[in-house]
Amino acid sequence: MNLSAIQSRIPEPDAGVMEVARRRQTALTKPPGSLGHLEELSVLLAGMTGQTRPRLDRKAVIVMAADHGVAAEGVSAYPAEVTAQMVANFARGGAAINVLARAAGVRVVTVDMGVRAPLGEFPNVRSLRVGPGTRNFLHEPAMTRQEALLTIETGIAVALDERSRGLDLVATGDMGIGNTTAASAITAVLTGCTPVQVTGPGTGLEPARITQKARVIGKALERHRPDPQDAVDVLSKVGGFEIGGLAGVILGAAAHRIPVVLDGFIAGAAALLAVRLAPEARAFLIAGHRSAEPGHGIALKALELEPLLELELRLGEGTGAVLAMPLVEAAARLLDEMATFEEAGVSDRPDPA
Amino acid sequence: MNLSAIQSRIPEPDAGVMEVARRRQTALTKPPGSLGHLEELSVLLAGMTGQTRPRLDRKAVIVMAADHGVAAEGVSAYPAEVTAQMVANFARGGAAINVLARAAGVRVVTVDMGVRAPLGEFPNVRSLRVGPGTRNFLHEPAMTRQEALLTIETGIAVALDERSRGLDLVATGDMGIGNTTAASAITAVLTGCTPVQVTGPGTGLEPARITQKARVIGKALERHRPDPQDAVDVLSKVGGFEIGGLAGVILGAAAHRIPVVLDGFIAGAAALLAVRLAPEARAFLIAGHRSAEPGHGIALKALELEPLLELELRLGEGTGAVLAMPLVEAAARLLDEMATFEEAGVSDRPDPA
Repeated sequence: MNLSAIQSRIPEPDAGVMEVARRRQTALTKPPGSLGHLEELSVLLAGMTGQTRPRLDRKAVIVMAADHGVAAEGVSAYPAEVTAQMVANFARGGAAINVLARAAGVRVVTVDMGVRAPLGEFPNVRSLRVGPGTRNFLHEPAMTRQEALLTIETGIAVALDERSRGLDLVATGDMGIGNTTAASAITAVLTGCTPVQVTGPGTGLEPARITQKARVIGKALERHRPDPQDAVDVLSKVGGFEIGGLAGVILGAAAHRIPVVLDGFIAGAAALLAVRLAPEARAFLIAGHRSAEPGHGIALKALELEPLLELELRLGEGTGAVLAMPLVEAAARLLDEMATFEEAGVSDRPDPA
Repeated sequence: MNLSAIQSRIPEPDAGVMEVARRRQTALTKPPGSLGHLEELSVLLAGMTGQTRPRLDRKAVIVMAADHGVAAEGVSAYPAEVTAQMVANFARGGAAINVLARAAGVRVVTVDMGVRAPLGEFPNVRSLRVGPGTRNFLHEPAMTRQEALLTIETGIAVALDERSRGLDLVATGDMGIGNTTAASAITAVLTGCTPVQVTGPGTGLEPARITQKARVIGKALERHRPDPQDAVDVLSKVGGFEIGGLAGVILGAAAHRIPVVLDGFIAGAAALLAVRLAPEARAFLIAGHRSAEPGHGIALKALELEPLLELELRLGEGTGAVLAMPLVEAAARLLDEMATFEEAGVSDRPDPA
């Protein structure tokens, strides 16, 4: 399905269903409001799914991997070959995201969107390569407009495929040495912040190299002048294949009323792109956590999302999103499974005199 | 086992095991520190359990219920009979704690420590009643010193019983109309704060009634003058049966190297008592969340604990602790199950030149 078809298909949250869920929340055996943010979240989940008592049993994290030409500028603490090595680690089940997904009953869908180094044969890695990594955006646009559209439409297709296997809740994950540089550039353009404000240590740069990383981003933005009103232009000039892919996953899920749990900074940049393409998509987003990367807080603010977790995570892979999934599922299950005051024969508060 | 026997048995965290865990953390396939607070937590869990790669498969929440004589002073938004009604709700599986425990694979152990109204026949509620609720501590001590000791030793016995069924991680839960009043009084005495500082809305009091609640606590503390150096004195004068029981659960678990996930304000007051009785117990505590109740932040600060979640919960029952348990288990599983750089053939960062 192409981008413009999806853009016109994203529904609004179902206000009638939300009202039913809100009324049920007040009838459940607990003081009103005592489940805090989980109460609001349960009502939002009802609105997203269109179900008064949503069940979120079938869960996946879609981990998209790609390389970044800008890694040649020394913007990461790790060498570029780590992208391919970590994809192999995902395929063998040894990475953090594999451990967390197993613990939470979430299936891992690993997608090669354009890793540079050759990958071995991994039947559990989907090969949907747009190219052998992006070009170095310090010197030239990261990809063509055509390639940018292809990344988004690939992400939409992956979301629809996973939906056909059964999907009630989806998380975004990413791997790509250099991708916080692309996410910083996208966030700067779409929020109007300076490169310095949205650039951080990523996998662990020292302060002097963070300054250099911000300078690379600043030069690229001066050279390419991405149009903040045109998300495809921004993605093509300073984005990444996996970031465009995740924007597509968000749009595809939203079009089918599937709530999306965002991971950290890379997911935030993808969400900013998705919401620029289709503002209605925002209503389907849940912020799993706030990353230690400074640009992520800025992205969440622009998206008007409050994160569920703040654990100083800065790994990516979808780890923060999958850690938050049990909270999202808990919110839905409380709404569905708790007894009401009437059912349980519990006295509600007396009416104020 | 009596209190003094347990007090002398609580071990220190195993520093050698923590060092092994810390070294393993740095060898796992992720940038050092990128799993944020979960990395520190995994090392603490290793120290608590004495295992370099702890497994936390067998989990329970111990929900202790009791009534409070001080409820007669109008300190709660709900009538006192709700304590017994909610215990029946726990027994039938309809309360929030039942839903969350099912979702997280945690067994619920409900204990009647002294509910006033007669309970029906519930084979899954343990009856370990110290009396038909405490006395009204505005006028007389809540319980005798003998009863206070009995609540603690009952809690120790429950922890040991559950350990004999298999227990790797335990959460504290509570139910008792009026118990935030007792928790506020205990927290004021043990932290040196004023009643006004530690008193909040509980289940949902309006501001004028919060002021009245703080006044009741202030009068009780003036009348009984609990000795802050003597936790049993504090518990007997302004405590509750379930609060003493939970202090015992903490001590019993700590003595057997079982990490304890604390719920909110009531658990915080129980932990302050437990740590006053045995300072070594503090090293076995994990703060599940920070409650919306203002006294809880003060208790956590005194305990030097940082909470895993901040979701504005204020329900009790163990809900915040059980919501945090998947994070605690995740920390342990990441340490145990992730591949190392060497195992996965992933390049670590180059040594700085």
